[in-house]
Amino acid sequence: MQQLVGATLLRFLDVVSGQIENLKRSLDMRQVEEFMNAIEQARKIFVMGAGRSGFVARAFAMRLMHLGYDVYVVGETVTPRIGEEDLLITISGSGETTSVVNISRKAKEEIGSMLAAITQNENSTLAKMSDVVVLLSGKNKYQRDEELSSIAPLGTMFELTALIFLDGLVAELMNLKRLTEKDLEKRHAVLE
Amino acid sequence: MQQLVGATLLRFLDVVSGQIENLKRSLDMRQVEEFMNAIEQARKIFVMGAGRSGFVARAFAMRLMHLGYDVYVVGETVTPRIGEEDLLITISGSGETTSVVNISRKAKEEIGSMLAAITQNENSTLAKMSDVVVLLSGKNKYQRDEELSSIAPLGTMFELTALIFLDGLVAELMNLKRLTEKDLEKRHAVLE
Amino acid sequence: MQQLVGATLLRFLDVVSGQIENLKRSLDMRQVEEFMNAIEQARKIFVMGAGRSGFVARAFAMRLMHLGYDVYVVGETVTPRIGEEDLLITISGSGETTSVVNISRKAKEEIGSMLAAITQNENSTLAKMSDVVVLLSGKNKYQRDEELSSIAPLGTMFELTALIFLDGLVAELMNLKRLTEKDLEKRHAVLE
Amino acid sequence: MQQLVGATLLRFLDVVSGQIENLKRSLDMRQVEEFMNAIEQARKIFVMGAGRSGFVARAFAMRLMHLGYDVYVVGETVTPRIGEEDLLITISGSGETTSVVNISRKAKEEIGSMLAAITQNENSTLAKMSDVVVLLSGKNKYQRDEELSSIAPLGTMFELTALIFLDGLVAELMNLKRLTEKDLEKRHAVLE
Repeated sequence: MQQLVGATLLRFLDVVSGQIENLKRSLDMRQVEEFMNAIEQARKIFVMGAGRSGFVARAFAMRLMHLGYDVYVVGETVTPRIGEEDLLITISGSGETTSVVNISRKAKEEIGSMLAAITQNENSTLAKMSDVVVLLSGKNKYQRDEELSSIAPLGTMFELTALIFLDGLVAELMNLKRLTEKDLEKRHAVLE
Repeated sequence: MQQLVGATLLRFLDVVSGQIENLKRSLDMRQVEEFMNAIEQARKIFVMGAGRSGFVARAFAMRLMHLGYDVYVVGETVTPRIGEEDLLITISGSGETTSVVNISRKAKEEIGSMLAAITQNENSTLAKMSDVVVLLSGKNKYQRDEELSSIAPLGTMFELTALIFLDGLVAELMNLKRLTEKDLEKRHAVLE
Repeated sequence: MQQLVGATLLRFLDVVSGQIENLKRSLDMRQVEEFMNAIEQARKIFVMGAGRSGFVARAFAMRLMHLGYDVYVVGETVTPRIGEEDLLITISGSGETTSVVNISRKAKEEIGSMLAAITQNENSTLAKMSDVVVLLSGKNKYQRDEELSSIAPLGTMFELTALIFLDGLVAELMNLKRLTEKDLEKRHAVLE
Repeated sequence: MQQLVGATLLRFLDVVSGQIENLKRSLDMRQVEEFMNAIEQARKIFVMGAGRSGFVARAFAMRLMHLGYDVYVVGETVTPRIGEEDLLITISGSGETTSVVNISRKAKEEIGSMLAAITQNENSTLAKMSDVVVLLSGKNKYQRDEELSSIAPLGTMFELTALIFLDGLVAELMNLKRLTEKDLEKRHAVLE
């Protein structure tokens, strides 16, 4: 079994490296800038995602809190009413996740909040209704590429790409706001 | 601002690529194999982590469920009593997170469960008490490397490395169990 | 302030006592029996609720796990795909909560799962689409009774009534299945 | 089965009514006042509980947010570092839950935060280390009263009592702060 263990895992790491190269080439920096502006200008920020994209959304929200933003996760306990001057950031590979699409529609139509979507599907319902879209390449959930399916099943490549991209954005925001690691640490929870 | 946006983000992506190369060289495949054996032999699997490591733990737990394992997240609603033949997987960069160390001690001493730790600190309390340890290189939380601190603050590099490693392990387990993406999809939640 | 402290709190306790009397008179035991049968016959049970009704749903799910049922919370980490022979239990005072209605519709129309709703609104979208409905009296969210509003705001009375009713149902299920507290304790989480 | 359904459930409702009478007689209003003062004087409020007591803690935290307090749940995504002028509210029937005791000790000894415990065990580790204690009668987890065990197993009676008490306290706080249901509704989440 020992050789098998090495083989698939190392192959996966190469695929991720390739994906990062892919991201470097394909990221539209104007989209990134629009996204950063939306974050900077929002009164409150709300994040949302389903399944593993939801964990990526929460990992990003935690860093936004460390950076000093007023940020909330849709569905968590202390999340208040969203308002017109607030931003809803959604993470969905397909851009068609039922809850994410419905909640986004509600935020836009009933409240007038701004929507920013991180997705790999620019033709999705979510992308079309959002004010800001950051398009990330990743395997499309409904596309069947034999090798990729067996090594990075379902939304794996999108979720990893989204987390890496958003952690890079945190570095940008730290730089923009002249914050150091010590500033983030001051807000980091200690009761854990 | 446009050039700034490009610079830090692209630099971050290079740092992550470097970290993946680092992981390829430094991963101890005997540790990986021991970890896979522990997963295969457990009756039930429990996962735990605090903060962003907790989101990584949950992303991994979700995939273990998709792979057909009987898996639970410590602290979630339907998580039952852990038993002697069960495995507790913990994720902690420092290996010193209060709740993770205390819960691990309880599982080991009071119940006799098996412990597997994913950490970057082999001298930590958690690593020392665990039956299986997978050591991941990452920035040490308490080490102050000027450039890395400003681009990948706090546990960022460990958390990303842990998610990438565990997603690679999912590929290994799919291969080992001869599962296809379709098999995983059959268990993937649709109410979301 | 001391007398004030006493007054409103004691008045609230009287209102809750009155509500329990109200529940005893108004509960339709045929609905309760149908609900118990749905629980007994389901292969897997899924529960869902938004906000404080979501906490009530999770408190009930935890007890169903203690009773030995195969139960999951919609949106939690290890929740698998719902199937045709499964039951979705929803808790919503108004019966109109966006996510609860949309998820229920998906479970019914796309999967063919059974729906059971705990609500105070028998004319709601949720009640109308559900196979089993348990109607609980409570203050209607949109009704404005001066005194009640100031002492049990928003969904308070429904949420309390739902938790009390469901804990009473747990007693029924223990009795039906001839389970003792010791049986429940064996499944109760210890890693907490 | 129909008669059985009626019997146990109605008996449970009587037990809860009796418990509310019991609470009216046994509540120490000086403890309640101290608890309200601690809430009013805190800069930030943190709440914590394990299992079903954790759901009660979150239901209370949600209402504190509706009332306008700056409140967080230990372990949730956007929860910041606790400080010296902050209050940690814990809910634990036994007052001995591992995580709750350890986190409270950390908040007190390392940070110097104020501790308020809602418990039924005045001799517990938690009660002894807390600055404010509200003692609620309920079945002691480790006491074995034959009938109560079979109708309100484990922490049921404490959890119900805690939720009812805390919802009564919300009424007190509304009254104290001259807030109406409309004020609460303005902060109530709509994305759900």
